[in-house]
Amino acid sequence: MKIAIAGSGALGSGFGAKLFQNGYDVSLIDGWEPQVTSIQQEGLHIDINGEGYHFDIPMHCLSQIPSNELYDVIFLFPKSMQLESVLDAIKPHIHKETIVVCTMNGLKHERLIRNYVEDARIVRGVTTWTAGIDVPGHTHLMGSGPVEVGCLVPEGIDNVKIIVDILNQSELNGVVSEDLHQSIWKKICVNGTANALCSILECNLATLNESSYAKNLIYKLTQEIVHVATSDHVHLNVDEVFEYLIDLNEKVGPHYPSMYQDLIKDHRKTEIDYINGAVARLGNENHIPAPVNEFVTNLIHSKESQLNAQ
Amino acid sequence: MKIAIAGSGALGSGFGAKLFQNGYDVSLIDGWEPQVTSIQQEGLHIDINGEGYHFDIPMHCLSQIPSNELYDVIFLFPKSMQLESVLDAIKPHIHKETIVVCTMNGLKHERLIRNYVEDARIVRGVTTWTAGIDVPGHTHLMGSGPVEVGCLVPEGIDNVKIIVDILNQSELNGVVSEDLHQSIWKKICVNGTANALCSILECNLATLNESSYAKNLIYKLTQEIVHVATSDHVHLNVDEVFEYLIDLNEKVGPHYPSMYQDLIKDHRKTEIDYINGAVARLGNENHIPAPVNEFVTNLIHSKESQLNAQ
Repeated sequence: MKIAIAGSGALGSGFGAKLFQNGYDVSLIDGWEPQVTSIQQEGLHIDINGEGYHFDIPMHCLSQIPSNELYDVIFLFPKSMQLESVLDAIKPHIHKETIVVCTMNGLKHERLIRNYVEDARIVRGVTTWTAGIDVPGHTHLMGSGPVEVGCLVPEGIDNVKIIVDILNQSELNGVVSEDLHQSIWKKICVNGTANALCSILECNLATLNESSYAKNLIYKLTQEIVHVATSDHVHLNVDEVFEYLIDLNEKVGPHYPSMYQDLIKDHRKTEIDYINGAVARLGNENHIPAPVNEFVTNLIHSKESQLNAQ
Repeated sequence: MKIAIAGSGALGSGFGAKLFQNGYDVSLIDGWEPQVTSIQQEGLHIDINGEGYHFDIPMHCLSQIPSNELYDVIFLFPKSMQLESVLDAIKPHIHKETIVVCTMNGLKHERLIRNYVEDARIVRGVTTWTAGIDVPGHTHLMGSGPVEVGCLVPEGIDNVKIIVDILNQSELNGVVSEDLHQSIWKKICVNGTANALCSILECNLATLNESSYAKNLIYKLTQEIVHVATSDHVHLNVDEVFEYLIDLNEKVGPHYPSMYQDLIKDHRKTEIDYINGAVARLGNENHIPAPVNEFVTNLIHSKESQLNAQ
């Protein structure tokens, strides 16, 4: 079974390393030249939950995937805004039974992915694992929680089971999601509050929890997200989700979310259009107003513009 | 005619200086001890449109106004959150014909002021003059535009004319407002966009105008403010106001609004509750949703909390 990691930045290289370490035939693929060159020349240096490893994993540049390669499983880990170009590049390497796995943050990536493979071959999910790039070729992976995956259509369940098996063989704790859409929306609540607000207020998660006003911001965003989720037949209780978010912020207090790191630290463009922006768009499609999510999206874009984010 | 300036910080000391310079019997009053002491000991040093002046104006501490003083006209210039305590302190010095002038930023200050004098003796207005405190006792005043004033009830018009005359005698360009409430709401549009957004994004007005996303933030806030204004029988055209705001930002581009200076530079609490917060409250009273103004209010309060603003 040939596996590709399409988008081998922080989380992609982490998942790739775990699969490779457990004997899978894995190829990393990425479009960022420094990362590609470093791993091709010196292998991947990775810190997994505090322990250092070094793996000589095959690494291909996105524009130079060997023409005869066909992948049985493709894990998608690009930034959301690069998903389409990554899918275009990997399209020639998809065969008629390839399974495409997407545990990316954000809403409705399947709308794009189903232009490349049918619904039954798309495995969608969410993960609580986190990762980062220290320097090109040197990354870290942290986590212990589940990787929840599920199918978009009932006939996809066998493919979901194949992916759960691969994840479990690789100590990535694959589980079949009991309610895939609910898990995705709950993750949107996490990212749509913590990522956006820590980036706007330039603070960590503990700081959000210290102020009743910031908690009110979390509540208002969550309220809208939960409301828009009903258009996806997902019914969450806003107070329960809010308590869950406050608890989560408490647990990982000193952490600065990835959007903060991208925007404030590295002056890179964010995935806001795929989180709060996607909530606002989906709300708009379904006549459920989400003005605060739209406002937050524009605030983040204003900051990107101000910081000349690339 | 005895005139008191209740709240003689930046703008108050500026108006007091102009009145004093033109022969009026003016007493400054303030609660901030360094300002009081400095002016009592060394007089007021003030830069008016680039020219330096020094005036020995009487200055009283808010808690030590001479007990026999009665004022014919009281100009109110405290920060909005101090208005009630200032009115309480000056109450014994109000007689039955005292005119109280309020050109403070913010909505519905008259709701508080009418606990102290009847509506006909309240002169409400807006000013485009700006001011700042350099160090205690040393301030600056800038402006040339009108001070628009009007009455809350028709029988107040004679008092309005008295104030217009005082302002004109003092080169402060008093004019009777053609539509007082419209002028107040237009000023709320200015302060509710520029002050709030420059403080959240930590930028000057030129930066707001550079990004289409920030312009969108201005538009959304304005749209809500204009909508809530209808509850006050004020009908503004949102596109016209928006164009006016963009033009204004262009003209005073390098300027950092007063809220930015209070919050970001000096870590002082802001008047957000009397601007965007007041819009949200009034919207709530009248069943006109203003979620974005409420969100912005909470964002500013979150920043105050983060910066430990006093």
